[in-house]
Amino acid sequence: MNETELHQDSIVIDGLIIAKWGRELFEDMRKGGLTAANCTVSVWEDFQDTVDNIVMVNELIEDNSDLVMKVKTTADIRKAKELGKTGIIMGFQNAHAFEDQLGYIQIFKDLGVGVVQMCYNTQNLIGTGCYERDGGLSGFGREVVAEMNRVGIMCDLSHVGSKTSEEVILESRMPVCYSHCLPSGLKEHPRNKSDEELKFIADHGGFVGVTMFTPFLKKGVDATIDDYVEAIAYIVDIVGEDQVGIGTDFTQGQDKAFFDMLTHDKGYARELTRFGKIVNPEGIRTVGEFPNLTGALLRNGFSEELTRKIMGENWLRVLGEVWGE
Amino acid sequence: MNETELHQDSIVIDGLIIAKWGRELFEDMRKGGLTAANCTVSVWEDFQDTVDNIVMVNELIEDNSDLVMKVKTTADIRKAKELGKTGIIMGFQNAHAFEDQLGYIQIFKDLGVGVVQMCYNTQNLIGTGCYERDGGLSGFGREVVAEMNRVGIMCDLSHVGSKTSEEVILESRMPVCYSHCLPSGLKEHPRNKSDEELKFIADHGGFVGVTMFTPFLKKGVDATIDDYVEAIAYIVDIVGEDQVGIGTDFTQGQDKAFFDMLTHDKGYARELTRFGKIVNPEGIRTVGEFPNLTGALLRNGFSEELTRKIMGENWLRVLGEVWGE
Repeated sequence: MNETELHQDSIVIDGLIIAKWGRELFEDMRKGGLTAANCTVSVWEDFQDTVDNIVMVNELIEDNSDLVMKVKTTADIRKAKELGKTGIIMGFQNAHAFEDQLGYIQIFKDLGVGVVQMCYNTQNLIGTGCYERDGGLSGFGREVVAEMNRVGIMCDLSHVGSKTSEEVILESRMPVCYSHCLPSGLKEHPRNKSDEELKFIADHGGFVGVTMFTPFLKKGVDATIDDYVEAIAYIVDIVGEDQVGIGTDFTQGQDKAFFDMLTHDKGYARELTRFGKIVNPEGIRTVGEFPNLTGALLRNGFSEELTRKIMGENWLRVLGEVWGE
Repeated sequence: MNETELHQDSIVIDGLIIAKWGRELFEDMRKGGLTAANCTVSVWEDFQDTVDNIVMVNELIEDNSDLVMKVKTTADIRKAKELGKTGIIMGFQNAHAFEDQLGYIQIFKDLGVGVVQMCYNTQNLIGTGCYERDGGLSGFGREVVAEMNRVGIMCDLSHVGSKTSEEVILESRMPVCYSHCLPSGLKEHPRNKSDEELKFIADHGGFVGVTMFTPFLKKGVDATIDDYVEAIAYIVDIVGEDQVGIGTDFTQGQDKAFFDMLTHDKGYARELTRFGKIVNPEGIRTVGEFPNLTGALLRNGFSEELTRKIMGENWLRVLGEVWGE
């Protein structure tokens, strides 16, 4: 099987996309051969604004049902593959939308939310993000983890602080993930994870989606798809071949106002970080270029079997476990 | 001046009342000769539910304007004294109602809120309460302190954890308070403050309101008003004569459902503590018995001048400072 055939035949899952919603994105997802993606519907929004986002996404999916479908189960993801559509898994990058109501967790599960990051960069009711001092998982946070386990929503720790992450990993009865991260072994950054952190989540049954956001890559904006593959290989060396996947963090189509919202606490308060120029590695600048990643993995010596696992089969398995299938 | 005359002549301010709202309470406030009181309008409520509470309180104050009036300034408090009414200072026991909006702080100031506790027992966006591990003041919390300083709302730390309290004390440009606390030097309890904590807040210009909630007193439900005076004397010894006042924590008229709401995280989640039987010290079981406190202070050797300070003059001064008058 050549690389094009392999990509077309594979289950391809992106563990994190926060691109501009719309038909243009959905067309690029089809061009890229994406089987499914965890797409962000909440960052700083409260309960009601998040529901409003979901209404908007529901309508977009309905209006573009030739290209995409909502997926709530791995059976749905397999169905999307069969139908040649891209499955949209709704996800949060912040559990802020749960507000102080444990009962909202089931509500959002019913609406199709499959993955929720516990904190986004700063402190919330549950714990603390990776851009400030982190006091760990709160008592309420432990209740949230238990309820997410019960209803089947995966705990994501990508933007979560080190201490809160460690305690969520220990608290959760289900696999948790860094849906989109890079190793600090290749570049020191508050958002990157140390070898110890990567080993810790893997040793406790968790999962690592590898991102390619250039501000966190060694070569920065000069990085190519091979630098992305280097990071994937680095993480495979630590976590093994079965607990790793892709989590691109594609932001295509987003404007300055959007990045300003992301990089300020609560979306508007103090500035937490600056990314500078945002451009993905050469070779995988857009979602439509996803097939190049299969090619780059093969070219860098990954077996066909391992490439399939990394491109989506591993995500499919772990999502099935967490979703209780 | 005998004790009755002294009480009638004094400015009497209670730094914390969370009793059942209604005419019965207002009549008891008049009977007790209360000039003003910081009355709780929010504990676990969000922004809108807190506004609804304020609407209810506004209507109650309007309907009982022969007994009470809303006070937003120390001039208002002096006016209440002149008119023989009790001034209602609206206060929060949790900054949760600010939600994630720094702009709501000015909104609540405009509505008459003069004192806000940063956290209630557990973690919020600002810091952590005294019933769980405390990671300190968050970055957003520092922005909240600055905005409270700017608009003139006093930071209250009674139910706040030790580390967050220390950091708020250091962060605030204005005096902060424990509006209602007892010394752990007389009884160890998560809600009581150590000699070091009491000294620290006083050394940084802060204020201590002394409570009499019997579960936190050495003799528990067998305590009398003299045990309350003992606690006041203990705190005066540490903080001096000018930074101390009364903060009873009167809960009269509240039912079991109300205490269940208080003692569970977010008002409904896991149970944080149990108080057992709730009865105030003999001699000051109700707001109407407030004059006995002036008597008990005098009987225990407090001078007339110090008694006046403790009963209200100190609160009046510090509130004026924080409110920017």
